[in-house]
Amino acid sequence: MSTNKIIQTVDLKAKLRSINFKGVCFWDIAPILKDPACFKQVVQQLAEHFKNKKIDVICSNEARGFIIGAALAYELGVGFVPIRKKGKLPFRCVDLTYKKEYEEDTIQIQEDAISRGQNVLLIDDLLATGGTIKANIDLVEKFGGNIVGLGFLIELEYLDGRKAIIDKYDILSLIKLKNTEP
Amino acid sequence: MSTNKIIQTVDLKAKLRSINFKGVCFWDIAPILKDPACFKQVVQQLAEHFKNKKIDVICSNEARGFIIGAALAYELGVGFVPIRKKGKLPFRCVDLTYKKEYEEDTIQIQEDAISRGQNVLLIDDLLATGGTIKANIDLVEKFGGNIVGLGFLIELEYLDGRKAIIDKYDILSLIKLKNTEP
Repeated sequence: MSTNKIIQTVDLKAKLRSINFKGVCFWDIAPILKDPACFKQVVQQLAEHFKNKKIDVICSNEARGFIIGAALAYELGVGFVPIRKKGKLPFRCVDLTYKKEYEEDTIQIQEDAISRGQNVLLIDDLLATGGTIKANIDLVEKFGGNIVGLGFLIELEYLDGRKAIIDKYDILSLIKLKNTEP
Repeated sequence: MSTNKIIQTVDLKAKLRSINFKGVCFWDIAPILKDPACFKQVVQQLAEHFKNKKIDVICSNEARGFIIGAALAYELGVGFVPIRKKGKLPFRCVDLTYKKEYEEDTIQIQEDAISRGQNVLLIDDLLATGGTIKANIDLVEKFGGNIVGLGFLIELEYLDGRKAIIDKYDILSLIKLKNTEP
């Protein structure tokens, strides 16, 4: 753990950029990542919330999830395990296919990535409809991993993603959006 | 900067896993990322080498590059800018198309990601033939960014990637491999 105090003076939501990307309202986190004070605050707020969970590894989805998950793993001094789309990871993998709005997607994790009973923190940039995080949960639990929390930079409350997740989990979202305008 | 001392006791090379992936010798970094001491050493060795370069932002390629680049940006207290394959970034972007061994690839960066005169550190997981890092350099220099260094987790010395890079740059590779066996 760094000795720096968390200074929550940055309004993360104000830094988000709303973009019409391929016809969908897309929340661009690039201005947050590019600003050292913002990026630091993101990592430290998540660290502060989850630091006592006895985490063994943080798992995140490619590609934006890697940015936040890896920095947090470094700060907390825990391992990092990537979850990737099918065909991207070398070595023997375990797959999980899940339904998205218009299609199916298959994610993978290496078969030796998580051991039975390990404490796993799932970190992603975005909680939207909840399909991806639900698939992540199912994949980790296939290995016997014990999910100690779910952390997101952004939660789109208007898409009700929490409904897809059993409410036993400790969920932290740093930015909550109630509609498609900031 | 964390107050933790760098303890270079881990043999990173011994942690690498060599895999025949789609017919090519592939170096799997997952065992390094999953091990907290290894991951910490990777970030801190890079930080120690580049910490006095007055870095403004770290740029990295998706997706493995994000893992190391983002953790290093957090440790050094600088911004992080993703370089992605075409079509993945929202907002207005600048493209660069480059030749790979068997095909072309186009990478992008957001048009407001780097300002003229900013000091940019490029971080990636792998220096192989050098095509990707050369494209990264050209893209950053299109913006007037000043490249202060290039950092890699692995360098495949048998592929002579440094030849693709003008030798004025400060290059650090943490693991150097002389052939396709560890």
